[in-house]
Amino acid sequence: MSQPLIAVDFGGTSLRAALFAGDSPQPERHKKIPTQADKGPAHVIRRMVKVIKSVMPESPKGLKIGVGVPGPLDPFEGVVLEAPNLPGWKDIPLQAKLQSLLDFPVRLGNDANVAALGEWRHGAGEQTDPMLYINIGTGIGGGVILGGEILLGIHGLAAEIGHMTVMPDGPLCGCGQRGHLEALAAGPAIARQANKHLDEGANSSLTSIRESGREVTGVDVGRAANEGDPLALEIIQTAGETVGLAIASLLHIFNPERVVLGGGVSLVGAPLLEPMRISLRQHVMHPGYLQDFNLVRAALGDDAGLVGAMVLAATA
Amino acid sequence: MSQPLIAVDFGGTSLRAALFAGDSPQPERHKKIPTQADKGPAHVIRRMVKVIKSVMPESPKGLKIGVGVPGPLDPFEGVVLEAPNLPGWKDIPLQAKLQSLLDFPVRLGNDANVAALGEWRHGAGEQTDPMLYINIGTGIGGGVILGGEILLGIHGLAAEIGHMTVMPDGPLCGCGQRGHLEALAAGPAIARQANKHLDEGANSSLTSIRESGREVTGVDVGRAANEGDPLALEIIQTAGETVGLAIASLLHIFNPERVVLGGGVSLVGAPLLEPMRISLRQHVMHPGYLQDFNLVRAALGDDAGLVGAMVLAATA
Repeated sequence: MSQPLIAVDFGGTSLRAALFAGDSPQPERHKKIPTQADKGPAHVIRRMVKVIKSVMPESPKGLKIGVGVPGPLDPFEGVVLEAPNLPGWKDIPLQAKLQSLLDFPVRLGNDANVAALGEWRHGAGEQTDPMLYINIGTGIGGGVILGGEILLGIHGLAAEIGHMTVMPDGPLCGCGQRGHLEALAAGPAIARQANKHLDEGANSSLTSIRESGREVTGVDVGRAANEGDPLALEIIQTAGETVGLAIASLLHIFNPERVVLGGGVSLVGAPLLEPMRISLRQHVMHPGYLQDFNLVRAALGDDAGLVGAMVLAATA
Repeated sequence: MSQPLIAVDFGGTSLRAALFAGDSPQPERHKKIPTQADKGPAHVIRRMVKVIKSVMPESPKGLKIGVGVPGPLDPFEGVVLEAPNLPGWKDIPLQAKLQSLLDFPVRLGNDANVAALGEWRHGAGEQTDPMLYINIGTGIGGGVILGGEILLGIHGLAAEIGHMTVMPDGPLCGCGQRGHLEALAAGPAIARQANKHLDEGANSSLTSIRESGREVTGVDVGRAANEGDPLALEIIQTAGETVGLAIASLLHIFNPERVVLGGGVSLVGAPLLEPMRISLRQHVMHPGYLQDFNLVRAALGDDAGLVGAMVLAATA
């Protein structure tokens, strides 16, 4: 087999590992186990070694390993700075630990950056340049691919597209700042707006959910929008317009060839994407920015991180 | 002499050309003539050839030429798409024309991008990576240097940092969009706010200018701010805070090592820069973005474009 590469997708719930041969995005082997994050970093690292070993090739000569990590990290030093939903993950030298336990070269990448790389190389990015990836889910993550490489910045903290200020007096963001794109258009922002309108007595099919005793989620709003519920449609439309406005700013900054949209919220589809495209076109300052440009949905789904970690592994 | 390079700074009022030897930013020869833009592109190109010939070295073997152009252009095809203040400049193949008239390789760059390159290589950028250059004058231009190269994007339209939306319902921008950074913090925006407050009867040392029969300019407001005028200080402070907020977004996107601030408005100094620095620190989501980062004033002044065109010439 050609160059063996193992990719690891390190999530708060699951640890996935896959063995790839050369540059094919089809894994030779694949394994998924629970992360058991509550037992702390040392335990999680042992499980990571276990899941990697379970997909190890017969002849691991020249093996390289790539790991997508959920949170800010220093990709140059291979240190996880923090992982918001993982207890005890603060300044953990994951790269050095894995290398000493496995004796193969390891590279770490932020999960959104790694997914961007996966979509660029084997998904909807189709090796365009520059390519921007925006993941809209419980947060808004981003990755920029320039000249075939992840834009990292001096300490690897690029490209937090979700933390652009789009409305200075807007709602609080999870990061503590105000009016960030994430605070206006991620899943929790969509849910918050729906619950607020329902509290104020808005007429909507979503009221039945509130009457059943639970809060409405972003997924509920997306589904209701696709069923034609006017309140849900309005909320999703506003979120789409806000993302479109932010993408226009990004077009002016990067003049990208493609923007790839992933994450759970992007699955809402037309009720989100149509207003987004209209808003984007309305807010672009010159038609030149739309020439040879496409805004597309991500193609790899949940596998973007794994495929991207494989592409990253090749550079280890 | 080592590699001879001729740099041209093509402005609406003046055409400047300088001869450089190798990579030194000190010109061997320098010449400045009026552009005479009102006589149209063919005339201006003849004058450009004339000013280039006036600084030509005795032995022009291996000569390369770089030109900084005031307006959007296609740097790959060497075509000036438009030059807002220059009559007739629309889709002019300047690179091909100069090459056929002079028989040396020519490269064109947008003036803000070229100034960014100059500051990066020989000025306040000090070859940091990534480096962002923001020019605040009658407009707000920008340039991003990544891995020692200008971020161009697919058609060379990057990096219009002045056209990020920072306030969706904000004032109209010269480009026709609303709430762009340029519409809030460039010289004309500062002047407009001052004139509006004076119209409304604000108490300020600037009233004497209005009484003399002319509108207050951005330069007037900057000078009054430095003299302690409360109205001018407030307007300059707000502009600084807005730029600081936008730079915070750019830090999240690029995680740059340095931001270099140039242009006439930046010369206002402390009344602008202090609120900008405070706002930047307040709006950054994580202290990691400020580590090893500096926001500095440009070092090359009016020569940034010429020095940058020299650096660009070397790549022709």
